[in-house]
Amino acid sequence: MRSPRKLINNGNIYVGLVHYPVYDRKGNIVATAVTTVDIHDIARSAKTFDVKGFYVITPLESQNQLVQKLLRHWVEGRGATYNPTRQAALSLVKVEESMERAIGDISRHWNSEVKVVATGARLHRENIGYYQLREILLEAAQPFLLLFGTGWGLTEEVIRNSDYILAPIEGSHYNHLSVRSAAAIILDRLLGRG
Amino acid sequence: MRSPRKLINNGNIYVGLVHYPVYDRKGNIVATAVTTVDIHDIARSAKTFDVKGFYVITPLESQNQLVQKLLRHWVEGRGATYNPTRQAALSLVKVEESMERAIGDISRHWNSEVKVVATGARLHRENIGYYQLREILLEAAQPFLLLFGTGWGLTEEVIRNSDYILAPIEGSHYNHLSVRSAAAIILDRLLGRG
Repeated sequence: MRSPRKLINNGNIYVGLVHYPVYDRKGNIVATAVTTVDIHDIARSAKTFDVKGFYVITPLESQNQLVQKLLRHWVEGRGATYNPTRQAALSLVKVEESMERAIGDISRHWNSEVKVVATGARLHRENIGYYQLREILLEAAQPFLLLFGTGWGLTEEVIRNSDYILAPIEGSHYNHLSVRSAAAIILDRLLGRG
Repeated sequence: MRSPRKLINNGNIYVGLVHYPVYDRKGNIVATAVTTVDIHDIARSAKTFDVKGFYVITPLESQNQLVQKLLRHWVEGRGATYNPTRQAALSLVKVEESMERAIGDISRHWNSEVKVVATGARLHRENIGYYQLREILLEAAQPFLLLFGTGWGLTEEVIRNSDYILAPIEGSHYNHLSVRSAAAIILDRLLGRG
């Protein structure tokens, strides 16, 4: 289906699942609750495509604790023995209270600027296509953070402040994938061997 | 990322989510419980890629009733008003007690043989690639049913009795995507505009 392609070194690519700031169904800017199936599914997709790390971004202490508890069970606790493949995926997860802190964490690790890629279901004039972004990732030396919004998506401010705005998955009539499915498809399009 | 491609008429393509017969973690053949997030996510992916119908296949009456209840809420009940995009996706769902009945239903509708495509995380000697299957779908006049296994995957017997066995998403070290993510990626690879 795809033309023969070079392999991407995914060791500089990170995923961020943003729970704040995002829109709710009415367009208000809110902090959403963490959904555990998002964390499991996106961690498994990230591991499949050799992503370097997966930041769960939430400013809410209760939600941070919920993710920490999940990680203790699956990464260190009984879940790790019960299902080692789940341990391997969830080992990629870190919780941060803001996008800025996630970016700072990556930046310190690389001693480099971090390029931020916003994703979403809406078309933007500045959208970059999958082929173009794949080419950029292939050449890039600095780290990249792909942001996925929960709820009704990343705010316009977050999108405008990103270095790249990735095109929606389908430009057509129905753009209502779950964030889990959207992340799976986008990682496959950017990093998969096809 | 992909070469320019013809659009596929997806009007003859169906998805089946198989809860029996599938393997459990020990390799026993079992009937798994229905997971509602599977139904929501795969229905939304199916709608995104214009799939004709989505069969939830379970022989268990309790599980059949659970899905019917979910559909009543989202397709006819208060969920339909609350979230019309969810209604649009879940309108694709039908419940059948076996793969044979799902195939029979499609076959009667088309008055035609149904080609069955098995998916899974394991390599098979007879695997067909994504590009090849996409070309076949493009030319095909008869209906196709793509089968996804829950639990630890479709049984070898189901796989061997299929017309095509689709290659795993990545042939590499980590093949533990959720069925929701796998279905999203596979529908995108076969039917997406990229």
